[in-house]
Amino acid sequence: MKKQPLVPEFGKKVRLSDFDPGYTGKFKDKDEAAAEMEAMLARLDALQERLYAENQRALLIVFQGMDTSGKDGAIRHVFSSMDPQGVRVATFKQPSAEELAHDFLWRIHKQTPSKGMVTIFNRSHYEDVLVVRVHHLVPHEVWQERYDHINAFEELLTEHGVTILKFFLHISKDEQKERLEARRDTPEKQWKFALGDLEERKHWDEYVAAYEEALTRCNTERAPWHIVPANRKWYRNYAISHTVLKALERLNPQFPKPVDNLAGIVVPE
Amino acid sequence: MKKQPLVPEFGKKVRLSDFDPGYTGKFKDKDEAAAEMEAMLARLDALQERLYAENQRALLIVFQGMDTSGKDGAIRHVFSSMDPQGVRVATFKQPSAEELAHDFLWRIHKQTPSKGMVTIFNRSHYEDVLVVRVHHLVPHEVWQERYDHINAFEELLTEHGVTILKFFLHISKDEQKERLEARRDTPEKQWKFALGDLEERKHWDEYVAAYEEALTRCNTERAPWHIVPANRKWYRNYAISHTVLKALERLNPQFPKPVDNLAGIVVPE
Repeated sequence: MKKQPLVPEFGKKVRLSDFDPGYTGKFKDKDEAAAEMEAMLARLDALQERLYAENQRALLIVFQGMDTSGKDGAIRHVFSSMDPQGVRVATFKQPSAEELAHDFLWRIHKQTPSKGMVTIFNRSHYEDVLVVRVHHLVPHEVWQERYDHINAFEELLTEHGVTILKFFLHISKDEQKERLEARRDTPEKQWKFALGDLEERKHWDEYVAAYEEALTRCNTERAPWHIVPANRKWYRNYAISHTVLKALERLNPQFPKPVDNLAGIVVPE
Repeated sequence: MKKQPLVPEFGKKVRLSDFDPGYTGKFKDKDEAAAEMEAMLARLDALQERLYAENQRALLIVFQGMDTSGKDGAIRHVFSSMDPQGVRVATFKQPSAEELAHDFLWRIHKQTPSKGMVTIFNRSHYEDVLVVRVHHLVPHEVWQERYDHINAFEELLTEHGVTILKFFLHISKDEQKERLEARRDTPEKQWKFALGDLEERKHWDEYVAAYEEALTRCNTERAPWHIVPANRKWYRNYAISHTVLKALERLNPQFPKPVDNLAGIVVPE
């Protein structure tokens, strides 16, 4: 299999058709990846503990993707080994009246991670150049300005010590059909089936165009996009875990040095 | 070993000296509990998924205890098997200036769980009748009123569908000494060592008195206190897991019924 990059080339127009959603890298199947996957989850857990203890920097993970692309599943599989005290998930649904009365980054900013934390965005500020664009919820000139606002906002966060990793979960249109049918036909999955998802599916090509523009204009060295092949759930989880692990290894967080000379301190009876 | 209740008798004055912090129930050691523990964690995970899917009720877990009693460890061990998307930890530290400018329940109320969620309080509104009382941070007549306010507040939450479980992690004074010394002497634990903890230790008996009053006056059928024997970490985790599991089993959350007749719905190409 030809090696497919996760991060598209900076400054170059992204075409999703250039990225195979069924790509599985060096692995033939799930079993081949299992041992490495397990080792990575243990390592992620250990590094997150250090990030939390260090209490100086933070990690922000953004998940975007079409309906059924696996945002919930990725969060569950990649992050559930971590200490819940250091991990927070913010899920962005339709904005409330109060949120709509503010600029589009207001509700997002409130959820950004404090020092030491790993925060996961299930959907994000990118919805404001995706669903908002496809359904004409604001005028063209308003959403067109937002790419620059997003880049400035993400730069602000990174300057404050927040490492940003953005994941687009890339599935094919056929794969979405199968997953919607599985939700329809599986009792424990039916609660996730929304008729609105079928309506959204009709706008597939418009969403592709909207994603391509966001993936092109907001793909920066500081806050890179990753186009995750997500037709295979196990490879999706592998690619995300691997990316988060590499980022944490680069950060190399350390337990803080104790301030005082502890050795001589006596704990009273 | 004489069977020791977790929940003290309602309406009766609690004396912590009646509760053995080294109690381990029906188990001789950790290995004996291991298989049951693993099965419980899997079951907790499954029931939390249903609670989240049902999206009608919520669970609020409150952790209190002396320094080093194991609040962080309990959160990590009991809740890290759950889906991070349905679990949120709120850690209450010294209140900010803005928080102090409001009544003591203001910052707490903001963090209560929305429907479907499991929220964990690492410390809580009880600090306002514990540290605040021991250090005379507000006048006697102010904190004396708070027990009733707490009971009314907890009743409000339970009427809204929030199940409240409160855990006091009960360790002996000797056990705390050992744990403080372990923090002092273990490099990866030193970041948790605070000189202030030694000062607090000097107030041990005053804290016991403050806890006894809170455990007596705010122990209600709706929001019961559990006095968790916590000298043995494995038994602490076992007792908490068992209690949370029983509560979720009583709630018996269900996947929602799909609203529409799904079988006839065709997913378009």
